[in-house]
Amino acid sequence: MGAPPGSAGEVLTLISAGSATTRADLAKLTGLARSTVSQRVDQLIESGLVEEIETGESTGGRPPRLLRMHTEDHAFAGVDLGATHCRVALMDIAGGVLAECEDPLQIAEGPEVVLPHVDRRLDELLVRAGRPRQALKAIGMGVPGPVEFATGRPNNPPIMPGWNEYPIPEHFGDVSVLVDNDVNVMALGEHRAAFAGTSHLLFVKVGTGIGCGIVAEGRLHRGAQGSAGDIGHIRVSGHEDAGCRCGNSACLEAVAGGAALARRLTELGIPAESGADVVALVQGGNTQALRLVREAGRLIGEVLASLVNFFNPEAIVIGGVLSRVHEHLLAGIRETVYRRSLPLATHHLSIVPSQTGINAAALGAGLLAIEHYLSPDNINRLMKG
Amino acid sequence: MGAPPGSAGEVLTLISAGSATTRADLAKLTGLARSTVSQRVDQLIESGLVEEIETGESTGGRPPRLLRMHTEDHAFAGVDLGATHCRVALMDIAGGVLAECEDPLQIAEGPEVVLPHVDRRLDELLVRAGRPRQALKAIGMGVPGPVEFATGRPNNPPIMPGWNEYPIPEHFGDVSVLVDNDVNVMALGEHRAAFAGTSHLLFVKVGTGIGCGIVAEGRLHRGAQGSAGDIGHIRVSGHEDAGCRCGNSACLEAVAGGAALARRLTELGIPAESGADVVALVQGGNTQALRLVREAGRLIGEVLASLVNFFNPEAIVIGGVLSRVHEHLLAGIRETVYRRSLPLATHHLSIVPSQTGINAAALGAGLLAIEHYLSPDNINRLMKG
Repeated sequence: MGAPPGSAGEVLTLISAGSATTRADLAKLTGLARSTVSQRVDQLIESGLVEEIETGESTGGRPPRLLRMHTEDHAFAGVDLGATHCRVALMDIAGGVLAECEDPLQIAEGPEVVLPHVDRRLDELLVRAGRPRQALKAIGMGVPGPVEFATGRPNNPPIMPGWNEYPIPEHFGDVSVLVDNDVNVMALGEHRAAFAGTSHLLFVKVGTGIGCGIVAEGRLHRGAQGSAGDIGHIRVSGHEDAGCRCGNSACLEAVAGGAALARRLTELGIPAESGADVVALVQGGNTQALRLVREAGRLIGEVLASLVNFFNPEAIVIGGVLSRVHEHLLAGIRETVYRRSLPLATHHLSIVPSQTGINAAALGAGLLAIEHYLSPDNINRLMKG
Repeated sequence: MGAPPGSAGEVLTLISAGSATTRADLAKLTGLARSTVSQRVDQLIESGLVEEIETGESTGGRPPRLLRMHTEDHAFAGVDLGATHCRVALMDIAGGVLAECEDPLQIAEGPEVVLPHVDRRLDELLVRAGRPRQALKAIGMGVPGPVEFATGRPNNPPIMPGWNEYPIPEHFGDVSVLVDNDVNVMALGEHRAAFAGTSHLLFVKVGTGIGCGIVAEGRLHRGAQGSAGDIGHIRVSGHEDAGCRCGNSACLEAVAGGAALARRLTELGIPAESGADVVALVQGGNTQALRLVREAGRLIGEVLASLVNFFNPEAIVIGGVLSRVHEHLLAGIRETVYRRSLPLATHHLSIVPSQTGINAAALGAGLLAIEHYLSPDNINRLMKG
């Protein structure tokens, strides 16, 4: 069961979705008594979530008053922690960005170094936006590893030493903190910013490793243990010699991830250490690098072809550092998906590069925080508290 | 937007879920005025959906009255059309089976033969259950091919000549008809009957072909074009010589489906025409048949290992005719899934044979009809009509 019908949470949902702009709308849509509607609306106004403005368009009697989200009081943060960077976006309750920043930061320095850094950045952004710390109602955070979403604890993250089982939300005290893996928050950011009308979407991040965020019926699908979308360890054919850090061989990311491509280029006598180096080589016209990226696209396409048959998405969005050379990557992906997937499933399928680019994760993390805060269950809890 | 909060549909949802058993409960849960609650409840009683009974446990004043679903008036049908059979279950609004029947029927005879047959069976079952034809409020139907769920029209179904684009619901006049492919209704039936507490489940049918029904967050995931779960045409490694009816090669069902196994046994000098023949050979102790079934399990497991990483289900249920020798099939599937999927995703994963067996499809089709009928949007539409 979700929130009870007719609750403050449901009333807020109708206002934030734009379905109701007056108290009369709310009474009609909910079947609530006018007095109950007024009580709910007054609660929401008092808590600074909603405002009621006079339109000035009087038609003789009392001028009509319109309800809308009040964007001046609250603040929400989206934090994107990568292997080597920290990006923070401060947002209002409608998802508008108030201020943002990005610095280099090594996640491997551990939570005792990284989280205080995030704290300082939050304080600076709040000052820049002119909002007090108490205005900050919720923080969303994407981290480069698996997370138990319900508790916000990383679960054996391979590139985050010191973070295993660390209770990230506790660091921030009373503020609600939602922690998810980076690919999930990127998928959410991309979906809300560029594919809001799309019900079923896959966001594939091709970086050092390869992962996938899944949007089903407009919501993130995290699966039973929160590990859904871990496509980097799906086996691809013909690469049994490629060992993977997971202990298996022929895993997709062990042959097509940015780290794997850099290693193979190095073996060919072309020094490269990272996915970004591979991208630079391709952009510089190196044909070996170009060939490897296109081949990586075909291998990623082989896996995606299976997932298209299984999941039947409307769109596949390719992000991550390798998507900077997306024309070569997408050529290989499209070639394989259209050859191997069923026509019914590919007829209306779009395979496109990410539109939100480097902003996807911070944006998605902020929206995760806002959507949590505005969920009917949370609003009803706040109204009772 | 779903149904408006406080509507008759929401009130019915609270009663059918057992969340509210009295008018007072409803007022408390919905925030509706007592008079509005009474109006909604009276509507539902008048339409025969709900009944109010006196408990007899008077504590002095007026004896308390309890609300519950009224199971005497309405009827719903679940129709399972296979390649060569027709099974029909007549159910009450709470999902209880009132009467059922099964006959041989060739789906290839086309809709003009098959649908009148279904009609006759429905009439017979209604007579047996003592309910008039008008009591039949909705029909759910599973067919062995792809269907555009929104319109109930089969979409290029390979083993259903004459059915392409046929508007099945129109045949039944005013009754709501929900048509879906057989694997989806089997997944729904299995989920509701045996895995109601499981959020994410895959139901894999291993019959002549191979297909999968997907339950995500307790609901069927049909995908953008309704083709989700079509895993029979996912490529498996090392079988490039196996041509498939879809025009590709190395498709899962072209090497591990019942028809493919029968063909390979025949090539080995052991005559077999169908998946049922293969099952009979295994049950008779034929070691070649047993070896092929186990190998089929490994190939199915190879595909499922990828899907476990991607989707992170809590349970995989194996159904279809080959599941009658599930010990051999499951051995192969489990071996491969546990070797190739990530530990986090398999730690709590159950891989089990279907518990609903041959009843899954008719049961699931009936529940599809009932859940549609009881959906808040539909109830609100009926109450306004």
